[in-house]
Amino acid sequence: MFDILIKGGTIATAADVFAADVAIKDGTIVQIGRDLGEARETIDATGRYVLPGGIDSHVHISQPSGEGIVMADDFESGTRSALFGGNTTIMPFCLQRKGEGLRAALMDYHALAEGNCYTDISFHLIVSDPSAQVLGQELPALVEDGYTSLKVFMTYEDLRLSDAQILGVLDTARRTGALVMVHCENEDAIRYLVGLHEAEGRFEPRSHASSRPIAAEREATHRALSLAEIVDTPLVIVHVSNREAMEEIERARARGRKVIGETCPQYLMLTADDLDGMDWEGAKFVCSPPPRDKESQAACWDGIERGVFDLYSSDHCPFRYEDEHGKLNPRGRENFRHIPNGIPGVETRLPILFSEGVMKGRIDLSHFVALSATNHAKTYGLYPRKGTIAIGADADIAIWDPEETRTIRHADLHDASDYSPYEGLTITGWPVSVLLAGKLVLAEGKLIDESRNGRYRSRSRSPLARKS
Amino acid sequence: MFDILIKGGTIATAADVFAADVAIKDGTIVQIGRDLGEARETIDATGRYVLPGGIDSHVHISQPSGEGIVMADDFESGTRSALFGGNTTIMPFCLQRKGEGLRAALMDYHALAEGNCYTDISFHLIVSDPSAQVLGQELPALVEDGYTSLKVFMTYEDLRLSDAQILGVLDTARRTGALVMVHCENEDAIRYLVGLHEAEGRFEPRSHASSRPIAAEREATHRALSLAEIVDTPLVIVHVSNREAMEEIERARARGRKVIGETCPQYLMLTADDLDGMDWEGAKFVCSPPPRDKESQAACWDGIERGVFDLYSSDHCPFRYEDEHGKLNPRGRENFRHIPNGIPGVETRLPILFSEGVMKGRIDLSHFVALSATNHAKTYGLYPRKGTIAIGADADIAIWDPEETRTIRHADLHDASDYSPYEGLTITGWPVSVLLAGKLVLAEGKLIDESRNGRYRSRSRSPLARKS
Amino acid sequence: MFDILIKGGTIATAADVFAADVAIKDGTIVQIGRDLGEARETIDATGRYVLPGGIDSHVHISQPSGEGIVMADDFESGTRSALFGGNTTIMPFCLQRKGEGLRAALMDYHALAEGNCYTDISFHLIVSDPSAQVLGQELPALVEDGYTSLKVFMTYEDLRLSDAQILGVLDTARRTGALVMVHCENEDAIRYLVGLHEAEGRFEPRSHASSRPIAAEREATHRALSLAEIVDTPLVIVHVSNREAMEEIERARARGRKVIGETCPQYLMLTADDLDGMDWEGAKFVCSPPPRDKESQAACWDGIERGVFDLYSSDHCPFRYEDEHGKLNPRGRENFRHIPNGIPGVETRLPILFSEGVMKGRIDLSHFVALSATNHAKTYGLYPRKGTIAIGADADIAIWDPEETRTIRHADLHDASDYSPYEGLTITGWPVSVLLAGKLVLAEGKLIDESRNGRYRSRSRSPLARKS
Amino acid sequence: MFDILIKGGTIATAADVFAADVAIKDGTIVQIGRDLGEARETIDATGRYVLPGGIDSHVHISQPSGEGIVMADDFESGTRSALFGGNTTIMPFCLQRKGEGLRAALMDYHALAEGNCYTDISFHLIVSDPSAQVLGQELPALVEDGYTSLKVFMTYEDLRLSDAQILGVLDTARRTGALVMVHCENEDAIRYLVGLHEAEGRFEPRSHASSRPIAAEREATHRALSLAEIVDTPLVIVHVSNREAMEEIERARARGRKVIGETCPQYLMLTADDLDGMDWEGAKFVCSPPPRDKESQAACWDGIERGVFDLYSSDHCPFRYEDEHGKLNPRGRENFRHIPNGIPGVETRLPILFSEGVMKGRIDLSHFVALSATNHAKTYGLYPRKGTIAIGADADIAIWDPEETRTIRHADLHDASDYSPYEGLTITGWPVSVLLAGKLVLAEGKLIDESRNGRYRSRSRSPLARKS
Repeated sequence: MFDILIKGGTIATAADVFAADVAIKDGTIVQIGRDLGEARETIDATGRYVLPGGIDSHVHISQPSGEGIVMADDFESGTRSALFGGNTTIMPFCLQRKGEGLRAALMDYHALAEGNCYTDISFHLIVSDPSAQVLGQELPALVEDGYTSLKVFMTYEDLRLSDAQILGVLDTARRTGALVMVHCENEDAIRYLVGLHEAEGRFEPRSHASSRPIAAEREATHRALSLAEIVDTPLVIVHVSNREAMEEIERARARGRKVIGETCPQYLMLTADDLDGMDWEGAKFVCSPPPRDKESQAACWDGIERGVFDLYSSDHCPFRYEDEHGKLNPRGRENFRHIPNGIPGVETRLPILFSEGVMKGRIDLSHFVALSATNHAKTYGLYPRKGTIAIGADADIAIWDPEETRTIRHADLHDASDYSPYEGLTITGWPVSVLLAGKLVLAEGKLIDESRNGRYRSRSRSPLARKS
Repeated sequence: MFDILIKGGTIATAADVFAADVAIKDGTIVQIGRDLGEARETIDATGRYVLPGGIDSHVHISQPSGEGIVMADDFESGTRSALFGGNTTIMPFCLQRKGEGLRAALMDYHALAEGNCYTDISFHLIVSDPSAQVLGQELPALVEDGYTSLKVFMTYEDLRLSDAQILGVLDTARRTGALVMVHCENEDAIRYLVGLHEAEGRFEPRSHASSRPIAAEREATHRALSLAEIVDTPLVIVHVSNREAMEEIERARARGRKVIGETCPQYLMLTADDLDGMDWEGAKFVCSPPPRDKESQAACWDGIERGVFDLYSSDHCPFRYEDEHGKLNPRGRENFRHIPNGIPGVETRLPILFSEGVMKGRIDLSHFVALSATNHAKTYGLYPRKGTIAIGADADIAIWDPEETRTIRHADLHDASDYSPYEGLTITGWPVSVLLAGKLVLAEGKLIDESRNGRYRSRSRSPLARKS
Repeated sequence: MFDILIKGGTIATAADVFAADVAIKDGTIVQIGRDLGEARETIDATGRYVLPGGIDSHVHISQPSGEGIVMADDFESGTRSALFGGNTTIMPFCLQRKGEGLRAALMDYHALAEGNCYTDISFHLIVSDPSAQVLGQELPALVEDGYTSLKVFMTYEDLRLSDAQILGVLDTARRTGALVMVHCENEDAIRYLVGLHEAEGRFEPRSHASSRPIAAEREATHRALSLAEIVDTPLVIVHVSNREAMEEIERARARGRKVIGETCPQYLMLTADDLDGMDWEGAKFVCSPPPRDKESQAACWDGIERGVFDLYSSDHCPFRYEDEHGKLNPRGRENFRHIPNGIPGVETRLPILFSEGVMKGRIDLSHFVALSATNHAKTYGLYPRKGTIAIGADADIAIWDPEETRTIRHADLHDASDYSPYEGLTITGWPVSVLLAGKLVLAEGKLIDESRNGRYRSRSRSPLARKS
Repeated sequence: MFDILIKGGTIATAADVFAADVAIKDGTIVQIGRDLGEARETIDATGRYVLPGGIDSHVHISQPSGEGIVMADDFESGTRSALFGGNTTIMPFCLQRKGEGLRAALMDYHALAEGNCYTDISFHLIVSDPSAQVLGQELPALVEDGYTSLKVFMTYEDLRLSDAQILGVLDTARRTGALVMVHCENEDAIRYLVGLHEAEGRFEPRSHASSRPIAAEREATHRALSLAEIVDTPLVIVHVSNREAMEEIERARARGRKVIGETCPQYLMLTADDLDGMDWEGAKFVCSPPPRDKESQAACWDGIERGVFDLYSSDHCPFRYEDEHGKLNPRGRENFRHIPNGIPGVETRLPILFSEGVMKGRIDLSHFVALSATNHAKTYGLYPRKGTIAIGADADIAIWDPEETRTIRHADLHDASDYSPYEGLTITGWPVSVLLAGKLVLAEGKLIDESRNGRYRSRSRSPLARKS
């Protein structure tokens, strides 16, 4: 007797699409096929896609931003929003503050997350202070404990690492088998350009984009890849926004480097023109790297189609603009430098890729599954437990209705920011039901289980990092 | 009650690897999972890989070569050899002779194949005489009938098409949804160089390689891709041998073209030095394009790893050298131009990729499955019936023992040529049992069913060709 | 006592710019410097540039085009127009007709030119029928006689050579030290597209451009370069119109090939939109390759600036549209295929480069001299007799007024066509006086010597061809 | 009556080669031609080349190195050696020490040079401490005064600038019209690798090369070019050693950037294997970037031939190994980090290029002149006073005997180091006589004038920097 049987749907993995039922027992997928046995509960998936629950490997939750602001989403609202977006696992960042230990930082985030999650979660570490203690002792122990990925920044005054520090982190990663993600923008170049903008009195949101040009991203991308080449480690280049940075990834691969590329919905759907909104509406589109232009959008779609990008993530980084929260930062209305840096998107990520990608014929359904779940699981050591519909995998499943058409309205979304950058975009294809560990949490668009049973998941080392 | 149950093995698809049993009924995979029901027959796959049967989409069988010679393998020996190499489908070519109709040619090949095949088969058409009748009537009708791919040559005096003819074929392909494969070498350049070699008295086998340089392959590759760009069709570039031709494929993709790249074992394992064998032993390594050098080998492996190549095929083209068959062509001993052009490899293709690719860590098991079966099925319209382990697919399954180590000896192989170019190569990982349509034909290395039930399979249009 | 002294000007060579006088004796430059001796005649060049007379190495004169039309310019009008454009040497083509010998063709052109030239001339051969006789005997003898360059076509039904024929020509060139120029467009691709245009009823001039796309030029460029690589000869790629063809040139150079690139005013100043003119006005802009778009214009300027192009020529190919001459070809009004293919430009070539290039800061004066004269002389074996201001060189000198501003009006030009494609373009910087072999022929814009003393000049082998 | 007449030679400029006499008066070239007038002194140059005196724009003289060592050459020995190598101008560096003002540093170097120079000299500034005072006041004033170029380092702990500092320098350069040179190697990457070498006990000279890999040079090259792109200035990339760095230069040019590339004899003639010499002989080949391998040598020759490099300089940086001077640094025998970093070469630079370049057919004589003198003068604002044989130019002339064949022996050279890295290399083509400002200083290989009349020369802004 199975616990649940999903009947009549079309299953898709990163390789295959076929009609079959899925039987679940004890939170695990145990059988796939026709004429399976009896189950306590049956879900009718006729006319629907049965997909692995989405994994969003680039999400910011409860993280302090500069200017004394904390992200709008805590673990409850963030994971709820993720769930409604067809996800069953998200990977937020644990930010080390300067002078703080990694373990101490993790305890804070675990405390915030504990008991509050609608999806499973797993943490990437952000290393902002790679002291000898951190690199020599804490990090190796944490990798052993299943925190197998970490992120470094080449921008933001308070987060950026020097090349020497990045080399130290990469060296530790090589020795311990951790996988390193890099935010590639040249901070000094940006500061130089910010200075020029300020000197010319150009304080509006659009200046955020013009002070962070493609050349600054391309430079840092090539530099990060060169440092990884020198240390001989794989690398994840996150949130790539344009063709020139893509070319750096492809050049590195042609030199024999193992490189994972990631892009995000904002680089497929927005442009710098969106930062031009009146009355500081443009502020709501401020993120880094900034959205570029139509040509860069086309380049990023091309990168999706050709496999330059293995990962498609939200870089969900939510703020509020209208209420008290927004008022915390009146300075953002006077100077683009003080605008909270990031946009929400964990809930709209997958519907956008489904509607604009699958339904418009740019990618097929298996490619969608790879970009939404499988590649994230494989890259970050969650596979084969997560990221696919296969025997033995966690029964984390999203059921999509490929014909449902709805227009994005923030009022219908579930995050704690107060807008969506995609307001008004009409989407065909939405997740309607979601099972987490074999339990139906979202059913036909309704949250039917508020128990927040999402668990923290430690991870294996990335196969990429193991190999090198 | 299932017909067969494969128990205890590790299943791999192009995306996933997991432990599960496979249940088969009426020749079809009906369930995958744990604790499946009863079956009439059970195969123990403990410690083994359960993979989709290999699909070799580039095979020459019973095809006349120049000089009055016919390939050593007929459908019986060719498919038997394929079966022992872990394949369940091969795709030989049906060669149109000048002046002959395509349909007439097909009847000949069907007659030869009928009742003689150990594996399923499906035919590509070779168009050597693209008359108005062929392009306007025969080809569209044949595509409708499921002959959805065809090949053209840019070399060989009796087969090469002019650019105008290739454009005509591509145009027909665009209108009918057929997929075109191209053998890319510039015939005029080769003839010019052959002339130089002859003028200098360089008649030995090695001259085959030096008269067909990389520049001639790169030129034709770029030209074929340009012609397809002008007509706006996808294209398959077969048997790529070196980095320069790979770069043409990548440049075309960056221009937005849909291009499938194929390479073969000879470009991963042999070099032009092999053509230097004493007493015309080198003749046994003559094929086109010729194997190049160590750097080109590394490039082709890089192309396998980075996904420049979607397909890995044998280009099996077997001849005999020692017996009467070999003596049919005494001229080959006097001048490289008369050496039969091609080498055998349908049986060794997959073991070589498994041993050199998977076991040496260059690719993972899912990538092996993609290259050996899934991508062939998807490219050529056999998917989802073929090419994967999924519910509803034909139960064409190869069971591999990843630990079996054997050295390649032609005496142990099953084709009708009289040598293997890989003689002496030690391989770890061999297919030990093979099911065709749910029937165990090869069991633990023994052919247990000589009924030759392999069927001809018509094909859907390639998704690539449908899209464009 | 010198014959002539040019005083007070600024001399420019391809390397240097300096103030000095030039003394001429017996048609040769004998001294350069300050305080030179007495002369029979003195020209005051104060405020002016003293430059080597322009060499236009790509000009069509008295050449039959298809459709029974002959070019509008004969040697008298063509060289007169060239002279007014600051040139002292032009290099027209001698067209071999199918079945005709090269020597016979040359006799015709020499007869037409004899006694009718205002500038020196030298002939390139167009090989349209590379018979054994032509390649084995005529061509070697003619190269010996100083006809050291020849052109082949990859387009035009009556002129195109097959790859085998091109290889034959290149092989002869390699053995004799001749330099080969290639018109690179894929004829079959163009014919295919012309067919599509006609089938769709698109007969207007603009279809000339859309039926000859960049891909057809890029393909032929790569092919020509590959054939030259196989034979191991240098190559001149004439009239390059876009970035993709430029990239083929640069890629070939990076492979170690010796390649000369040429572009023309039409690719710097016109676009395909010019072919849209009403009432078949667009026909006046029909040439091959066709002008492309603004992006291609920028690319060609970039190629000028970066040295991708060594040569800048007019490809002067003049027709008339309004009088009897134009009426010879009424078919051109009905179908773009019958429009005479070519545009005039021998007189406007240098003023356009001076005004748009030097005056707008894209190139400096020495670069102008290199592109207008020196590189032509060096490429084609006229150097050091021609192409520079140096001791011992022919006193072929153009004196330019860098401040003269005039708008191009065909009424002011001197060729025998009846329009200029640059009508209305305002130019700053014009040649005002020209000396041929030390004799002042054009003085302050007036033709003062109608004796037509221009001579035919045989040439040395190109240094490029000597080296290889 | 001229002061000097050079008769019967073959003159070469960067564009032209011709037979003529040169007349000099008051230190200036006043006439070029045949049958010039009388002179007080006549030099017979029959059978010889009359070339502009070499300009070596990358020379270190009397500069302190790390470890308390000063370069072996002072201005007397350095310029004497340069003179014997066919040079009439060298451009040493004025090194700012941390905390020191630029003007103060200049006074030191001027004091050392004053009255001690056999050639003209001009200083580049090395900015190691770009304080607000330096960038805001000193540098602009110095550029006004004719110190129009400056160099920054991305390596060496005591010299490297941060990206922010480089941006500051570039910004000042843009505002003032100065031209910036960059030493491109990533210091942090090198320090990381040095650490690895030391940890592994690899202290020998060869480790200098392996701790400074191509990736570190390529990275810094791309970064420098990106910073210049962001500020919008031209850039000089000095001493390029390999193809990857060359490609960065070419990519930047294709993006529209103005970039000057320089290479040096060591990258054409040496490899890292030279650092393997026994008993620390390898130390004598230590320089940065290090010589690479045969493939990189071929790449640099290709860069010379194709014009990737505009400049060819010595990077003369002389040390002694055998005497007291050498003993100052015993630590260099124990650890490659302490080996004095640099090799001598100001005297052998031009003979090497002449013999290996011109005589072996890689470049022609005009290209030699461009690389040895003209391009240096044009790049750095010494043109048209220096760098060519033209009317009005300084009569700085080197007379070369193209047939003289001698083997390089340090005993025959004139610098103050105690070895030559090119010992034993046989050279055909040597400078035999040199005139500085119209005065014969070196005559038939003998120093005939020890008055050391070389002058300091202030410079105009580079035309490149003026334009941008």
